[in-house]
Amino acid sequence: MELNKDTKILIVGLGLLGGSYAKALTKKGFEVRCVTRSQSSVDYALAEGIIAGGAASPDPELIGWADLLVFALYPHIFIEWIENYGKYIKKGAVITDVTGVKQCVVYKVQDMLPEGVEFIAAHPMAGREVYGVQNSDDSIFREANYIVTPTEKNTPQAIRLCKDLGHTLGFAHVAELTPEKHDDMIAYLSQLTHCIAVSLMTCSDVPQLKEYTGDSFRDLTRIAKINEDMWTELFLLNKKPLISMIDEFSGELYRLRTYIADDNVEKLKEMMRTSTERRAAFDKTKMQEN
Amino acid sequence: MELNKDTKILIVGLGLLGGSYAKALTKKGFEVRCVTRSQSSVDYALAEGIIAGGAASPDPELIGWADLLVFALYPHIFIEWIENYGKYIKKGAVITDVTGVKQCVVYKVQDMLPEGVEFIAAHPMAGREVYGVQNSDDSIFREANYIVTPTEKNTPQAIRLCKDLGHTLGFAHVAELTPEKHDDMIAYLSQLTHCIAVSLMTCSDVPQLKEYTGDSFRDLTRIAKINEDMWTELFLLNKKPLISMIDEFSGELYRLRTYIADDNVEKLKEMMRTSTERRAAFDKTKMQEN
Repeated sequence: MELNKDTKILIVGLGLLGGSYAKALTKKGFEVRCVTRSQSSVDYALAEGIIAGGAASPDPELIGWADLLVFALYPHIFIEWIENYGKYIKKGAVITDVTGVKQCVVYKVQDMLPEGVEFIAAHPMAGREVYGVQNSDDSIFREANYIVTPTEKNTPQAIRLCKDLGHTLGFAHVAELTPEKHDDMIAYLSQLTHCIAVSLMTCSDVPQLKEYTGDSFRDLTRIAKINEDMWTELFLLNKKPLISMIDEFSGELYRLRTYIADDNVEKLKEMMRTSTERRAAFDKTKMQEN
Repeated sequence: MELNKDTKILIVGLGLLGGSYAKALTKKGFEVRCVTRSQSSVDYALAEGIIAGGAASPDPELIGWADLLVFALYPHIFIEWIENYGKYIKKGAVITDVTGVKQCVVYKVQDMLPEGVEFIAAHPMAGREVYGVQNSDDSIFREANYIVTPTEKNTPQAIRLCKDLGHTLGFAHVAELTPEKHDDMIAYLSQLTHCIAVSLMTCSDVPQLKEYTGDSFRDLTRIAKINEDMWTELFLLNKKPLISMIDEFSGELYRLRTYIADDNVEKLKEMMRTSTERRAAFDKTKMQEN
């Protein structure tokens, strides 16, 4: 199967991400329908022309209609859903997802699916600090990364299809990683940063300091406004790599603390030079992407 | 003494901050001159009309000319400067500074000054990741905080003058703190965040991960491009409060780590809720300021 204008797409879970997928794909001329929990989301999306149809329950007919299903659900709900309704997915269909952790869902879901249905996992690294289809916005994909995480069970065709989906959605960069490498990477680049932002907000009762905060503190804590249900689940599902990253980071901060305590000017400067060089390399990449 | 159009202002150290002060004050109609290290900075500032005059050496006549002197130097150079040339400052003059740490300079400089010269310290919480008068830009003050840190030796007149200077420069918010409270606050809101950003960059060799970084990682490490000479000096001069903040933060991150290791869903969510509430209060303040 390849992605073309006849590919019928079902979004399962019409929230911020699911809604943004629907918006982007409808604009590109695909027929997009949805299955989600609330009727008001379906009504809103229909009224806005984001979807061609949808249901507020896992309608077997709608499920069986789709060639490509995109799951935009919390990880445990995704797995429950497949358990209960996976049987309605038609033979030859491909499913993909948006889950922010991979090992814990990919192998399980691949094992649960009926014969002839292929799950190719992906992680669109895009989001906003707001929720719901009402806030959906396909421009969030524009400067973002889309990571496909195939396993040995995946066919080249499905991997191709999934990458095409990433490009079609408008992602700046489409990459491929194993679920294991993905989870290590995400522990470092996304989960650890959220742990830091939260700890930075809770380690001191800031309110009386509000008027003194500068840009750097605001930058570091922007993501401290956090969806506690989703992130608690994501942290616990990626416990091992995340704890190992927290430990690595804490060790490094402790090294810096030691240099400060010891007045070790040379080591302090050396650490700052490494940091400056590595960060400068980032900006360069960013520019090349744009 | 009060700040008025006849106040003759000398900027000592014409870098990014000193240059931005000169720009703002010249625009407002003050006569601004400078004493700095490099002739090319003087030439540039004269050609751009940022200053009315200046010298690349601590000219006694120029120093004695000024009613108000602003020191925009590294802390240890500031102290050396006062030691060597403080005697040329005229009786009745007021001096202020831009130093990012306070206790270590305020008391020392106040003790060193000749009779009849008053030092009222201030910290303009503004800056950019570039250097030199060529990059000076008085718009950096617009959304920033200006903090005056008086001691028992200061007169109400000088405190008033210093606050007027903050308003004249265009700062959004002018506040007053003791040097001790300032240093505690800056350890938390600025120095700790820089320590975190540096440790985050050095704790893993990121280059191969560059293509996967999202906005949150970029936000948290923007300040990891750091002037190693200046920040090493600032960290060491504020060692005690900074180490105590690093320890508080590390303890909090360890608490989060423990909840993750123990699958403590309730405690994790509670921590994230606190973080979300506190961070939301920030955005509100920000809006009220604008």
